[in-house]
Amino acid sequence: MHFPFRPHILTVFVITVLASATLFGTAFAPSALARQSDADRLIEAALADSAAWERLAYLTDTFGPRFSGSENLERAMDWIVGEMKADGLENVRKEPVMVPHWVRGREELLLLEPHKRSLDILGLGGSPGTGPGGLVGDVLVVGSFDELEARAGEARGKIVLFNVPFTSYGSTVVYRSQGAIRAAEKGAIASLIRSVGPFSMYTPHTGNSAYDDAVPRIPHASITMEDAMMMQRMQDRGQRIRVRLRMEDYWLPDAESANVVAEITGSEFPDEIVVLGGHIDSWDVGTGAMDDAGGCVAAWEALRLMKELGLRPKRTVRVVMWTNEENGLRGANAYRDMHREELHNHILAMESDAGVFTPRGFGVTGSDAAFDVLTQIGKLLEPIGSGTITRGGGGADIGPIMNEGVPGMGLNVDGSRYFWYHHTKADYVDKLDPWDVGLSVATMAVMAHAVADLPQRLPR
Amino acid sequence: MHFPFRPHILTVFVITVLASATLFGTAFAPSALARQSDADRLIEAALADSAAWERLAYLTDTFGPRFSGSENLERAMDWIVGEMKADGLENVRKEPVMVPHWVRGREELLLLEPHKRSLDILGLGGSPGTGPGGLVGDVLVVGSFDELEARAGEARGKIVLFNVPFTSYGSTVVYRSQGAIRAAEKGAIASLIRSVGPFSMYTPHTGNSAYDDAVPRIPHASITMEDAMMMQRMQDRGQRIRVRLRMEDYWLPDAESANVVAEITGSEFPDEIVVLGGHIDSWDVGTGAMDDAGGCVAAWEALRLMKELGLRPKRTVRVVMWTNEENGLRGANAYRDMHREELHNHILAMESDAGVFTPRGFGVTGSDAAFDVLTQIGKLLEPIGSGTITRGGGGADIGPIMNEGVPGMGLNVDGSRYFWYHHTKADYVDKLDPWDVGLSVATMAVMAHAVADLPQRLPR
Repeated sequence: MHFPFRPHILTVFVITVLASATLFGTAFAPSALARQSDADRLIEAALADSAAWERLAYLTDTFGPRFSGSENLERAMDWIVGEMKADGLENVRKEPVMVPHWVRGREELLLLEPHKRSLDILGLGGSPGTGPGGLVGDVLVVGSFDELEARAGEARGKIVLFNVPFTSYGSTVVYRSQGAIRAAEKGAIASLIRSVGPFSMYTPHTGNSAYDDAVPRIPHASITMEDAMMMQRMQDRGQRIRVRLRMEDYWLPDAESANVVAEITGSEFPDEIVVLGGHIDSWDVGTGAMDDAGGCVAAWEALRLMKELGLRPKRTVRVVMWTNEENGLRGANAYRDMHREELHNHILAMESDAGVFTPRGFGVTGSDAAFDVLTQIGKLLEPIGSGTITRGGGGADIGPIMNEGVPGMGLNVDGSRYFWYHHTKADYVDKLDPWDVGLSVATMAVMAHAVADLPQRLPR
Repeated sequence: MHFPFRPHILTVFVITVLASATLFGTAFAPSALARQSDADRLIEAALADSAAWERLAYLTDTFGPRFSGSENLERAMDWIVGEMKADGLENVRKEPVMVPHWVRGREELLLLEPHKRSLDILGLGGSPGTGPGGLVGDVLVVGSFDELEARAGEARGKIVLFNVPFTSYGSTVVYRSQGAIRAAEKGAIASLIRSVGPFSMYTPHTGNSAYDDAVPRIPHASITMEDAMMMQRMQDRGQRIRVRLRMEDYWLPDAESANVVAEITGSEFPDEIVVLGGHIDSWDVGTGAMDDAGGCVAAWEALRLMKELGLRPKRTVRVVMWTNEENGLRGANAYRDMHREELHNHILAMESDAGVFTPRGFGVTGSDAAFDVLTQIGKLLEPIGSGTITRGGGGADIGPIMNEGVPGMGLNVDGSRYFWYHHTKADYVDKLDPWDVGLSVATMAVMAHAVADLPQRLPR
């Protein structure tokens, strides 16, 4: 695909020399002055062609979804390692991690009453199967956990549907993660959720779910918004809703996987590290282009551009593509454990896991002093509008090391459509614009390079 | 669902008395004066509650998709007949029609290279199955029939994919209807099309397709926009695209179905008839709420409101819900044949088959004299903005009688999203707004009543 070069943005590349003498001590002044030109080189290179989008398309088209335990995931990582070496990146390696291996078998929800029809579902990660004959039951629709409590007496032997309209992800996803436990507590034989998303074209969303040994592990699946609303209407009319649920999902033993790591070693403080990345695993539907091959490729391309432009900063810049974010966080936890001895030298951890849509800036979790420095660095990104630094943010994969004191930040992007596609079969690279991908590369590259090149460590 | 009553629209119900003496002859003046008050009563009644939307929801929820030959279709029609009688409509009946009976079996497209994954498809109506083992072949992607001609030598033994982006329905749907013939001419073993629609959330669209006895009948299915674009990228990169297509679709003998008919008999000219309706069959996916239960219910409710308000016009108003529009037009042809003797007394035929979104007016096919009268009548709908009469229009189901000289018109609506959902699993009642459904009822009611109540026949 030809890159839609947009000169009207490039023309605003004003060389805005920082009012550097007062930045954070005179010692920083020369470096601060240097940074804008480095930043501009990175931005210009990131926007010069559609290389990042093409790489993202190649990765997601060629290897498809990359679910933990799948051959696709391992093939994708092997290809990435080869490409990273060809890019001339340093210390390219896989750091082994064992990951859980849940397998989606055939899944079917057959509406029996009031009419017969096969409805689309996606089992939720970790759900047991139903057995080959499936489960037949009446559906009880509830709009909240409170309503389930109020109607607890009706739930026994039924299939509970949580029909909860999307508000924010956080307030809705709890029905995905906790629904099976709550329904089982009331004696339900299975639980269904309305897919967690704001817009549907008959689009089920998968995602992970939790179980509790104190109650039976019942099958748990998501249905479309359309069918959830339909069943609500049926129940409201007094119509009986009878279904057969059949899920052949199952577990296999833990599988070998890895975090992929590549670096540019720092010129002055090689033991001090700026980490950036995303998670290379995805759900098993769609191709995981937004979630999160885009974040991985943005970080990777950021590092490649530094290499290509000869911009070796004072500290080491390390790209990590974590494995198993979606259903275990094993990669993130393993990274923390394997790198525990050098966590004190992790200057900053940066993640992109909200889709590489138009970037706005970063959300930061760290000290006030760190926030002030990062806010100043954000000005380097003003020409492309992605330098707004806000408080609060990070990412699932950098969470474990943030908990150990590493300052963390997450790339903030235009989030208007992320949850339309999140964990669905529609998560494809065509939903991402090459220009936005380039902007995301530029944003991560400029921030990572600038922090790694600071004359003094970013304050904790 | 509670009806979202919107008084800001009702407040514009100005009683705009027509400048009637000059309408089309003084003989029409009194009636013309009377009509605005009748129109206003119909509009007010249609917008007073959400009865039409509720009926549409009940119909589509309870009986589901209504494909020709299915039990769902016949159950839905039996329920409609009972309800129409309960509404007090006259001459309620089913007029028997034999319909083709194609059955969708299990359908599967398995991508084998460059990665393994099951892709969603929808077989196109009339497609033969592949046999239980399926077909394995390489995919050749073409962007047009011209490109297929240019690459004809590469097509033999392959599966041809027509990756044609949506422009207008008419210019894209030809690949759905003719693709299997054209691909078979070049020796392809199967054909695939990019779904005919402008926006996708991994949404395949079904629809009918044609075969030609001169070439082999090869399996024919639609894939999503996402996968079509992906395969295009793969081919452009030189990647081999290898798939296994398995379709268990098959034909059964013709099945009994019917057109549903209900009337209000005219007070002065009962043999003269204004026909309005839609098609009661749908595709076998989704629930056919837009296509075309909405049109059926809008016509039905229009008639019910006339009955309820005691507005018996001079001529007979007849609602027809035609069967088998989607894959045969048997209902429409049977109606023409069964009513051939009274076609000269069909004053006007009106169809709604573009979804009951916000109505704008009607597209008319008829004489200039008829157009002028209908334009005047359109003014009755100015209070609700749905009175714009344009040239050209009709509907598939009224096509056969229009060909016999009956003036025809189609309800024009906001068409911005119709093809997002058309022939997909997402065609559900939640895509339609109760207020819009009410407006569509009002629009059809006012037009049908006014034409049926004209002092003189609508000129041909």
